[in-house]
Amino acid sequence: MRIAVDAMGGDNAPQVVVDGALMATREYGYDVVLVGDNTRIQQELFNKGLKQPKNISVCHASEVIEMNEPAALSIRRKRDSSINVAARLLRDNKVDAFVSAGNTGAVVCAVALRLGLLEGVQRPGIGLIYPTLKDLCVLIDVGANIDPKPEHLLHYAIMGDVIQRHILNKKVVKIGLLNVGEEAAKGTEFIKDTHRLINASTLKFMGNVEGGDIYTGEYNVIVCDGFVGNVVLKVSESLVHTLGVFLKRKLKRGFMTQLGALLSLPAFNALKKEIDASEYGGAPLLGVNGVTIIAHGGSSAKAIKNAIKEAAEFVDHRINQRIVDAINR
Amino acid sequence: MRIAVDAMGGDNAPQVVVDGALMATREYGYDVVLVGDNTRIQQELFNKGLKQPKNISVCHASEVIEMNEPAALSIRRKRDSSINVAARLLRDNKVDAFVSAGNTGAVVCAVALRLGLLEGVQRPGIGLIYPTLKDLCVLIDVGANIDPKPEHLLHYAIMGDVIQRHILNKKVVKIGLLNVGEEAAKGTEFIKDTHRLINASTLKFMGNVEGGDIYTGEYNVIVCDGFVGNVVLKVSESLVHTLGVFLKRKLKRGFMTQLGALLSLPAFNALKKEIDASEYGGAPLLGVNGVTIIAHGGSSAKAIKNAIKEAAEFVDHRINQRIVDAINR
Repeated sequence: MRIAVDAMGGDNAPQVVVDGALMATREYGYDVVLVGDNTRIQQELFNKGLKQPKNISVCHASEVIEMNEPAALSIRRKRDSSINVAARLLRDNKVDAFVSAGNTGAVVCAVALRLGLLEGVQRPGIGLIYPTLKDLCVLIDVGANIDPKPEHLLHYAIMGDVIQRHILNKKVVKIGLLNVGEEAAKGTEFIKDTHRLINASTLKFMGNVEGGDIYTGEYNVIVCDGFVGNVVLKVSESLVHTLGVFLKRKLKRGFMTQLGALLSLPAFNALKKEIDASEYGGAPLLGVNGVTIIAHGGSSAKAIKNAIKEAAEFVDHRINQRIVDAINR
Repeated sequence: MRIAVDAMGGDNAPQVVVDGALMATREYGYDVVLVGDNTRIQQELFNKGLKQPKNISVCHASEVIEMNEPAALSIRRKRDSSINVAARLLRDNKVDAFVSAGNTGAVVCAVALRLGLLEGVQRPGIGLIYPTLKDLCVLIDVGANIDPKPEHLLHYAIMGDVIQRHILNKKVVKIGLLNVGEEAAKGTEFIKDTHRLINASTLKFMGNVEGGDIYTGEYNVIVCDGFVGNVVLKVSESLVHTLGVFLKRKLKRGFMTQLGALLSLPAFNALKKEIDASEYGGAPLLGVNGVTIIAHGGSSAKAIKNAIKEAAEFVDHRINQRIVDAINR
């Protein structure tokens, strides 16, 4: 198993990326190709007293696409960016998978452009695997395709079904369509058409679900357009942070409350970790002809390690082949 | 000030509605007309030892629209439902405003049908006034108009601006357009057209905002289509609940943590109250020719009281006239 990791991607690159890669090579024995500025990567390794760490190699890329650069433009202009170089390694079968915590749009563009889409797939989608009150759920799409057609959402439902079955070992995969009400007659024309299409498939389609169903765990896959999915992803992250701040403000008032806060601190920290999506790895870029995992920009080293592990699992379980089989069945 | 309150609307109607109405009459001296089943309302008053409470009157309505009934259909079929009767009282100027914790869709339909829209307004919108890390923010629309035109969102921006200025006393009202990225070139064609339209207005338009900006308080009004807004509203409510459950699970582990939880309990409860949207009253139904506040289905008596107070403020500050003036300027 050989995985290209974008050493320049993420808020704390290359340091945390190198740390995460080292953890992955040690824990799982994968080969990791760090793609990015050779001098800076070697400096990171040198800082750790590791000149030639086992299972780690470096592939130089002279340019970096910043987090807020326009995706399509930067991919064309910065041909030697770490994202482009890694996408080419994936295309040329020099690696089995690609992990990046960098500019999401640029990763989607580069991989779709260099590797193309899976047979039968019309648009890529980004899946989010996240914790609920019960099991992990897959939300697709969270931002690759903001103006989709009903057929795209049917394909996302199929992709989510494959991930639940083969990565998360679910036997029965319950699928919901994100809407503003439960009745089949609710929603826009796009949603009603999508409802009919998924309902006619062999998937275990439970019908419309609402925003309030996203965290209950009653559904294993929830599909939506990339606009709504992106807003859900970002509002959720932000709300977790906001509630933490609110709670801290409250807990500062009064001695007993402060003492209580101190004693319950380990529980808070454990919770924070548990709901941190990065603990579950990154978001798979689905529908493209190569395994790519998009890690959060704020990923810790452990999150990078988990994203690398997730990429390996997608390769091991031949997820892309299974998606092709399911879509073209 | 005379306000019609749907006594049959909400999860715990008529009890909490009657309680809330009594609180509003006592605290603020408003006249409240309880609209609904006379026998049941009288029974509630009787249970409290109040046969003829001051400032309270009852207007009988023989039917009830349940929470999950299809809106348009139920409004036509149940002509003597509390929602229809109250909407007629508002239309006939028998009351100054209407508050309901009942079926949102039915309230929107009934009020829009009986009273029509404000001059220049093409579609009603539902505003949500909610707490952020800084001040209260207004999100419009959260579900009345799921397939809007750019002009509708411009009108929502104007409505939000009026609410911030005249209800929340903001001098400078910063307005954002909910999108998947900050750059003006981001988003669907609908969003780009809306961006241009609001940008050309005299409003203090800050451009695109993302899901992560909803709770920061950096913006005072955020506009979006009713589909996305409805999902944001419901996912936020659900996530607050989910995090509470996660936290309780964690806090049960270990004696010190349990003790800590016990000591910090008052802070948790205070937080829960503070972020409970109902503490800020209900969601104003905007663009219709009459003041209507939609309270949460799970409203407490205090929430009903606050919604009644909010309705009175909308009347006092002539919000609808100000909206008409601003839109037709």
